[in-house]
Amino acid sequence: MIIARVIGSAVSTAKCERLRARKLLIVQEATARNELVDKAPFVAVDAAGAGEGELVLVSLGSGGRYTELTDQAPVDAAIVGILDSLEIGGANTFEKH
Amino acid sequence: MIIARVIGSAVSTAKCERLRARKLLIVQEATARNELVDKAPFVAVDAAGAGEGELVLVSLGSGGRYTELTDQAPVDAAIVGILDSLEIGGANTFEKH
Amino acid sequence: MIIARVIGSAVSTAKCERLRARKLLIVQEATARNELVDKAPFVAVDAAGAGEGELVLVSLGSGGRYTELTDQAPVDAAIVGILDSLEIGGANTFEKH
Amino acid sequence: MIIARVIGSAVSTAKCERLRARKLLIVQEATARNELVDKAPFVAVDAAGAGEGELVLVSLGSGGRYTELTDQAPVDAAIVGILDSLEIGGANTFEKH
Amino acid sequence: MIIARVIGSAVSTAKCERLRARKLLIVQEATARNELVDKAPFVAVDAAGAGEGELVLVSLGSGGRYTELTDQAPVDAAIVGILDSLEIGGANTFEKH
Repeated sequence: MIIARVIGSAVSTAKCERLRARKLLIVQEATARNELVDKAPFVAVDAAGAGEGELVLVSLGSGGRYTELTDQAPVDAAIVGILDSLEIGGANTFEKH
Repeated sequence: MIIARVIGSAVSTAKCERLRARKLLIVQEATARNELVDKAPFVAVDAAGAGEGELVLVSLGSGGRYTELTDQAPVDAAIVGILDSLEIGGANTFEKH
Repeated sequence: MIIARVIGSAVSTAKCERLRARKLLIVQEATARNELVDKAPFVAVDAAGAGEGELVLVSLGSGGRYTELTDQAPVDAAIVGILDSLEIGGANTFEKH
Repeated sequence: MIIARVIGSAVSTAKCERLRARKLLIVQEATARNELVDKAPFVAVDAAGAGEGELVLVSLGSGGRYTELTDQAPVDAAIVGILDSLEIGGANTFEKH
Repeated sequence: MIIARVIGSAVSTAKCERLRARKLLIVQEATARNELVDKAPFVAVDAAGAGEGELVLVSLGSGGRYTELTDQAPVDAAIVGILDSLEIGGANTFEKH
């Protein structure tokens, strides 16, 4: 799963039926120090109750469909966890406030 | 799902049976501000009734086959929603006209 | 599906049983103007009767296995259509001769 | 499977049910000489009993779900083996201590 | 399938059960002229009886699991064929010795 920060949200009315009532969040890949990586943001279905600004785990590809909210939906990315902390080499590089 | 702009369309007569009668649109990845990203455009099956110029959500890989129009088809990309608006940090970065 | 040009062919005698008698073509990603993109060429199973020089649609990943010729085969890329024409912004960028 | 080094760990309380009690490790792609590759680290579920500093095999995408610990979980990366040694051209490029 | 050269081998004792007794080879993507591409080598399960130095076809992602040796295994890359020759524009760019 990639580490990503929730930076916004998307609204889409005309969409596939199985995406109805799903929260669509804009996420951007981030480092373990919560710095944004220089890649285009993309949209993930929220399956973990995430909010803007939070650092999350995004499961890409078919992995994003193994949640109750995304099962059988035309989804290639889902937020599957909210990160509390990250540790590298014994030191905390990220801690949720 | 990536954010992409519909920039054109493709015509293919000799194609796999399960692609028959599908609308093939040319899309290019875009930022949340509707700026095209410098990547080669590609072809996605339209499962959302999209038109040229619209900003859409494209589901890549197996995710693109979870729509009525692409089920069991040899497809790796489908347009699964038309974007109405995108918001980052409380400000609209895109709004459909 | 990516837009790609058929640039050659591959011969492999010692291969997995389910690849037997399949036409293996070398393809390289191309723009909508039929210009080759600077990426390494790769091999796709031909499921559309394509020939060298043609611009084709290549379905990547699991999508490449949803054809009669590639079903259940260890394949991650198949040619699923031959392009007749591509249009961007109302103008033809490619037309098959 | 990519070659990767375990560089840390992640803690996530609010996560999808099927990720519960899974060890989430931070990994970064590495060369066959155990040098880190300049790509953003990411999170993989540990299915091989790996520890920080070890060089491991990470199976990406759906491949990461074919372990007892990740079956049916919203996972796109799993550590599936701990590397003992790597050999290129008859010479050891890595050996576990 | 990508064109790749077998450049070495990997040994992993502590690994997932379904990887047991599988030959793990280190491969690196190559051009149709058998020149290595500047990308990190990775590990593929050998399903074609390949040896070091050979140019092979590697099926990535779920495609790598459609062989007898990799079925249901946590694998994202398998060698599915040994290349005899490659031809581009009517000229041989590679021929096995």
